Amino acid sequence: MDRIRVAVLGASGYTGADAVRLLLTHPQVTIVALAAQQKAGQAMSEAWPHFMGAGGLPRLVAPEDVPFDRVDVVLGCLPHGASAAVLAGLEAVRILDLSADFRLKDAATYRAWYGLDHPAPHLLAEAVYGLSEYAREHLPAARLVACPGCYPTAVLLALLPLARAGLIAPEGIAVFAISGVSGAGRALKESYLFCEVGEAAAPYGVGHHRHMPEIEQELGAAFGQEVRVGFTPHLVPMNRGELITASVALAPGASVADLRAALDERYATEPFVHLLGPGVAPATRMVRGSNLCVLNVFPDRLPGRAIVAAAIDNLVKGSAGQAVQNLNLMFGLPETLGLEAPPLFP
Amino acid sequence: MDRIRVAVLGASGYTGADAVRLLLTHPQVTIVALAAQQKAGQAMSEAWPHFMGAGGLPRLVAPEDVPFDRVDVVLGCLPHGASAAVLAGLEAVRILDLSADFRLKDAATYRAWYGLDHPAPHLLAEAVYGLSEYAREHLPAARLVACPGCYPTAVLLALLPLARAGLIAPEGIAVFAISGVSGAGRALKESYLFCEVGEAAAPYGVGHHRHMPEIEQELGAAFGQEVRVGFTPHLVPMNRGELITASVALAPGASVADLRAALDERYATEPFVHLLGPGVAPATRMVRGSNLCVLNVFPDRLPGRAIVAAAIDNLVKGSAGQAVQNLNLMFGLPETLGLEAPPLFP
Amino acid sequence: MDRIRVAVLGASGYTGADAVRLLLTHPQVTIVALAAQQKAGQAMSEAWPHFMGAGGLPRLVAPEDVPFDRVDVVLGCLPHGASAAVLAGLEAVRILDLSADFRLKDAATYRAWYGLDHPAPHLLAEAVYGLSEYAREHLPAARLVACPGCYPTAVLLALLPLARAGLIAPEGIAVFAISGVSGAGRALKESYLFCEVGEAAAPYGVGHHRHMPEIEQELGAAFGQEVRVGFTPHLVPMNRGELITASVALAPGASVADLRAALDERYATEPFVHLLGPGVAPATRMVRGSNLCVLNVFPDRLPGRAIVAAAIDNLVKGSAGQAVQNLNLMFGLPETLGLEAPPLFP
Amino acid sequence: MDRIRVAVLGASGYTGADAVRLLLTHPQVTIVALAAQQKAGQAMSEAWPHFMGAGGLPRLVAPEDVPFDRVDVVLGCLPHGASAAVLAGLEAVRILDLSADFRLKDAATYRAWYGLDHPAPHLLAEAVYGLSEYAREHLPAARLVACPGCYPTAVLLALLPLARAGLIAPEGIAVFAISGVSGAGRALKESYLFCEVGEAAAPYGVGHHRHMPEIEQELGAAFGQEVRVGFTPHLVPMNRGELITASVALAPGASVADLRAALDERYATEPFVHLLGPGVAPATRMVRGSNLCVLNVFPDRLPGRAIVAAAIDNLVKGSAGQAVQNLNLMFGLPETLGLEAPPLFP
Repeated sequence: MDRIRVAVLGASGYTGADAVRLLLTHPQVTIVALAAQQKAGQAMSEAWPHFMGAGGLPRLVAPEDVPFDRVDVVLGCLPHGASAAVLAGLEAVRILDLSADFRLKDAATYRAWYGLDHPAPHLLAEAVYGLSEYAREHLPAARLVACPGCYPTAVLLALLPLARAGLIAPEGIAVFAISGVSGAGRALKESYLFCEVGEAAAPYGVGHHRHMPEIEQELGAAFGQEVRVGFTPHLVPMNRGELITASVALAPGASVADLRAALDERYATEPFVHLLGPGVAPATRMVRGSNLCVLNVFPDRLPGRAIVAAAIDNLVKGSAGQAVQNLNLMFGLPETLGLEAPPLFP
Repeated sequence: MDRIRVAVLGASGYTGADAVRLLLTHPQVTIVALAAQQKAGQAMSEAWPHFMGAGGLPRLVAPEDVPFDRVDVVLGCLPHGASAAVLAGLEAVRILDLSADFRLKDAATYRAWYGLDHPAPHLLAEAVYGLSEYAREHLPAARLVACPGCYPTAVLLALLPLARAGLIAPEGIAVFAISGVSGAGRALKESYLFCEVGEAAAPYGVGHHRHMPEIEQELGAAFGQEVRVGFTPHLVPMNRGELITASVALAPGASVADLRAALDERYATEPFVHLLGPGVAPATRMVRGSNLCVLNVFPDRLPGRAIVAAAIDNLVKGSAGQAVQNLNLMFGLPETLGLEAPPLFP
Repeated sequence: MDRIRVAVLGASGYTGADAVRLLLTHPQVTIVALAAQQKAGQAMSEAWPHFMGAGGLPRLVAPEDVPFDRVDVVLGCLPHGASAAVLAGLEAVRILDLSADFRLKDAATYRAWYGLDHPAPHLLAEAVYGLSEYAREHLPAARLVACPGCYPTAVLLALLPLARAGLIAPEGIAVFAISGVSGAGRALKESYLFCEVGEAAAPYGVGHHRHMPEIEQELGAAFGQEVRVGFTPHLVPMNRGELITASVALAPGASVADLRAALDERYATEPFVHLLGPGVAPATRMVRGSNLCVLNVFPDRLPGRAIVAAAIDNLVKGSAGQAVQNLNLMFGLPETLGLEAPPLFP
Repeated sequence: MDRIRVAVLGASGYTGADAVRLLLTHPQVTIVALAAQQKAGQAMSEAWPHFMGAGGLPRLVAPEDVPFDRVDVVLGCLPHGASAAVLAGLEAVRILDLSADFRLKDAATYRAWYGLDHPAPHLLAEAVYGLSEYAREHLPAARLVACPGCYPTAVLLALLPLARAGLIAPEGIAVFAISGVSGAGRALKESYLFCEVGEAAAPYGVGHHRHMPEIEQELGAAFGQEVRVGFTPHLVPMNRGELITASVALAPGASVADLRAALDERYATEPFVHLLGPGVAPATRMVRGSNLCVLNVFPDRLPGRAIVAAAIDNLVKGSAGQAVQNLNLMFGLPETLGLEAPPLFP
């Protein structure tokens, strides 16, 4: 089989770079182009010295200079808005978009949360929401795949089987989350300077984070009704890693053991999603650098409720790794190809 | 006025050491004895090189070798169980206990959560629960003060005014918390090694943390009824700092603005508790090393609910600092004495 | 005695903020003005939320709007170049400049290392180099004091007594250094983002760091001859703290014990500089947040050489703390006033 | 070709675990046994939750229970002393020892530095010092390979070509080094608790670190004469990564450009060792998790001297990765097999 020819747009950001990291050892992929707006012209090893030893990477070019006619699939890692604007013009290639632009099905919701008119609303219906474990049947035929946000990935992997099985109530889901700083990207902001984050923990986006409508859209579909989900993310001093802790109400008659059984059944044979042993708390250290998700369920102190927790690496299963997993599924490759490396610990 | 003569028991732990740090610049206190079980015999600058420049600190002795007849007040920083056992024998001195031993009013509850019979149940009724801002009137006459746990301090400062005013419902309070590693003490455990915690975030004690009954006891008193509180703490890679984020149901007719007004009214003149401006998220970086608590309230995404968040330094307002604040109140000193230093940032 | 009226220029940077932190609890100082170029108009608690609880701080104004006629002493924390340009116009106030502008005695050297013509070369002769422990006799009469750089402070405290006593050779001094990220200031640079520094260590400015000529100027004076000093600083993932490790050649006949004796004699009665016990390595954790310097000397593996190491907090003894120490000396106050707080550990 | 059957002794330490991480994706290796003294009986996913998703790993057994007759090569990751004692009994298998036991050629030197009689001095002559880039010709026939220490690996890669080419002087080499905490292993020591290391930097082993004789042995061989090397390591708050900065005297007539040319020539075709572009400082972030070494040379401020710096991941090129590289060379496999993954950044 010929190698799949990939172009990465937005290769100067953390997500794009982590995609390149994974693609470099993928045995069925060739990176034919790397694009970035501001750093066009630089060698990748200038923008990313950790690629010093990775010979043969193409130099960064402007997105419009990518030879799309020699590309099989584009990984879009541009900021929202910019991403859809560029990708809308690419009709002959398959697309894995890692931005937020094609995740929401409703252009009005997009406008409400992202503050701009969607650049390509005609493509929203076509876009497949690429939470790999739940999108497998749709990916082989998909042309445009919207890779989920990092938080939604963790929340949905934890809660979808429970919602679908009717084991939890759609009301009163309160999700608390923790993220490493790479989730904020490589943009220059005072609040992401080392000294501002070091020895610091704080919530952000309280009550109005942009991953809310995405979580609600997908959970709502699973519940078969509109839902509202509380979601409060926190920033803590680490590079990578994301943890979600959800407080959920058990459906009438359901027990924590039922939840555990449902998760076990759903994920027993999944290569990347692992239910931990009883009482073992998910931790970001268990998944660092890998495409894994570890999760668990616990009795809550509040009567009739349970705690469901999950950990991922925000840049891998939460972004670039899931994109590679989707790429494998789109092109009929073994799903784990290029993603076999265990986590890096310590 | 003569200086108050203080002995610190358990001066080889992080809490004891931070008490010494604060007492060293307290203008009305003399440290007459420092005790530790295992490191007895060492100079404090051996056990704690950061006290290298603090001349005149007494050498560590065993707790039984403290000259209690020349002591006005004991700061107990021993582990639970050990603390009550030692302190029960001290009838002629006043006591500020920073362990968990005198926080719960009910010996059965203590046994259920701490797994041992209370060493001095006859003292439980006498002990004043020393959340300074709510214990002021009882402290001048108190002989035995139980300083609150670090998490309860943050949770109660955030929620007590709302519970007392009937602005939130007693049901369905779900608290998510984050702590730096010093909260775990200086004991040798693999899970507190640098490499185990670095680049790692994880929940712990899910569903059964020992601060739960303490929070419930005090919130229950405020509500005038028994309550259950969900509480899920997380460990993240930082030395100090504690953050709580509580999801609460608004009482019928109450609004987020009402909650804000209640917090504002309650804390407007408090020296150590500050309501942040609308939308500003509490962060541990705002309080590091100080006795401050910063808090705020936000509309939640879930209808009829609000998010209340608070940040403290777990070793200061969450422990040693609050003890000094209580000491000031017990002895009729200005409440802020020795606690005026602003936070250390960055 | 009336309180000394202080204005801080550059109060939006880490150094300026740490000066404010220290001045807030200084019993003989009043902060009458705080200036910053870009954040003029903001309340200090906006620019620095950790000052939330510090009532009464003046709002940030532009440097030109400071009422200098009501100021006794200015703390200059502006960037080099800008600092001298502003301070040169202030003839009636005393000045503690924390920038690099008045440290070098020779305007040509300044131009060579800082790449610009000195804005006020006529003031260079007047400026007192304010390494407190070596400038005491000159400070009471000084109008303009140049506070040393952070690295030079640590290097000079470690080596000056040895150079003056002729115990080390002026040739072949190789200094390696480590700094926390706050030394780089609060400017927005990609290389100071959390993710770029987290889990990372690297040298910088190799062979050409701007603190070299400053170290050489002062060590040269102590040796009575021109010297060249090797100096290689490294950035590591921590907020505060600076460590220098110097490899030096023993003068003929000198032993490590002689060096130790010289350091002991010189610093035995110093309040802020402490020679550690034999074999104890200086660590930044011993000085965090304080004006202390801890140091020690060790036999080197290389014959005829020794290792001298010192640790300071770069923002305190390396900057704002030393400025306050100098302020005390300038105004005849006890030298330790406002600087008595022990380090913050952990 | 049949897969090579590997046993890892000491799989409960960081080094052993990182060897397992690398071997898991090595296409020509089968892990047949994992041994650990204290955690024998545990599943690897208990001792190391990050291996949760790695199916098929054998359970930990005691070293004596390893079926050595079904093993082709043993990776010894036991502590020094214990390692040689166990490995000396294995006559029929090939051995890659990652402990310090077979690095020094002289049993007396071993006794002097490690404080115990060598458990198997008769094997010292046979052991090949496995700095891969310099041991290639000896590895295919080797039965017993001593993998270099982490610091010696970085120092020797940086300096060997310069020493061999006569471009630097054997006298006065002063090496300063920085390491992440994983270099200290997983043993329970107060000084490696998170709070002791967080926000802290300090030298250790000053003047007497055990990697000194190893560096001197190998550099001495390159120089053709005995040498003494100054070496001062420092611990900083990060999990992984090691950086060495060496101050060296140029040989008469040699220039920094000559050093650069020698490094360039020596490493131009090496897969894992990379000379950075002029002026680019090596940083641990460039090599994290990978088998890479990045290095560079700079003019020193001291006349006639140069600074040579190198960065590695202490657990990979400094330990487990180099062992896998050596395994490849011993068994005639492509040298980079299993080591192709780029570094993990951020």
